Amino acid sequence: MAAVKVFCPAISTASIRVILCLEEVGAEYERVNIDMATGEHKSPAHVAKNPFGQVPAFQDGDLVLFELRAIGRYVLRKFKASDVDLLHGSSLEESAMIDVWLEVEAQQYDKAIGPIFYQAVIIPRFYGGTTDEKVVEENLVKLAKVLDVYEARLSQTKYLAGDFFSFADLSHYPVTHFAIKIPQVAALFDARPHVKAWWESLESRPASKKVPAGLPQ
Amino acid sequence: MAAVKVFCPAISTASIRVILCLEEVGAEYERVNIDMATGEHKSPAHVAKNPFGQVPAFQDGDLVLFELRAIGRYVLRKFKASDVDLLHGSSLEESAMIDVWLEVEAQQYDKAIGPIFYQAVIIPRFYGGTTDEKVVEENLVKLAKVLDVYEARLSQTKYLAGDFFSFADLSHYPVTHFAIKIPQVAALFDARPHVKAWWESLESRPASKKVPAGLPQ
Repeated sequence: MAAVKVFCPAISTASIRVILCLEEVGAEYERVNIDMATGEHKSPAHVAKNPFGQVPAFQDGDLVLFELRAIGRYVLRKFKASDVDLLHGSSLEESAMIDVWLEVEAQQYDKAIGPIFYQAVIIPRFYGGTTDEKVVEENLVKLAKVLDVYEARLSQTKYLAGDFFSFADLSHYPVTHFAIKIPQVAALFDARPHVKAWWESLESRPASKKVPAGLPQ
Repeated sequence: MAAVKVFCPAISTASIRVILCLEEVGAEYERVNIDMATGEHKSPAHVAKNPFGQVPAFQDGDLVLFELRAIGRYVLRKFKASDVDLLHGSSLEESAMIDVWLEVEAQQYDKAIGPIFYQAVIIPRFYGGTTDEKVVEENLVKLAKVLDVYEARLSQTKYLAGDFFSFADLSHYPVTHFAIKIPQVAALFDARPHVKAWWESLESRPASKKVPAGLPQ
């Protein structure tokens, strides 16, 4: 079976999520570099794969996909095994809880931690700009409230969707791996023991350790 | 079988999406009103169902769900029938294309049409405020680009994920049903014949016609 292909730059939290899925299921894959600095993501070849000219794109034979969460679901469904099933598609209730916490990641968590990471890391490091501390402060307040909900949840179940590691947990990894290096973010995790233990269990997964560093440390 | 329950206010595009799913599959359901004007969505009873204090929430026996897209997936999986299957879970490729276009709705379409709708309809009608025309203009430009991608896609397939109606199409209905009454939005649809025909096919579905009007016309 030919390896599937992921078209993305080395530096991309969106792409790390797809690669983590591939590592978790042990699929063979090839990463095809997209050089965003030269606008390769807007090239006709890439736009044919992702009509919005964004990364990542994905190819498995004739099937071309885009949007990282859709690619992730496909990878986890196609390559699932009896001991690696991160979507629990055979259980109506468990797959529903995975969907709930995937949406929480997209609609609540990412909307708070994303702007913090962008302001505190991406703007100064990659654009030579100045962090807007007001945006950081506002989103730290939001993130604290989101993590209060997580703390309550994770005091009842080991992982977000239940007592099993799932795509919902995995989806938190990429941005958190970088954002937790920001001291105020780390402090929010340290203050919530169940969140902290959950995060440590994600960091210690073999797949997490294999994923490329992505951003300079 | 006891009817499932949807906890939401009458006026809510998010809730209309869940109710549309229930109508499409012909499930029995009960709508339990949540009075947001009196802050009922922040009450302990509602927060026990949705820890973020938002609408809608959903209950099926002991199972309580929140986040509209997760509820929608559950409803469509649980009540699917041989002639009503809006997720195509048995086909790896078709379900992947549904996931792609569901993400496009969330990440591209809604992020353009949502702010237009909010500025042009919600702010003046419900908050007595003034529309920020600059935000509307910027997002009309974004929406036009998104709809160009849709026009190209819908010139190849009858619906977004393929030649079959799916959750991806349905998910566009609620906000569009209201936003298309804004003349500049209608003009963008009118200028794209495949998008226009697709929209008319969504409007003409029996489930669409049964869904409560939601917002005053």
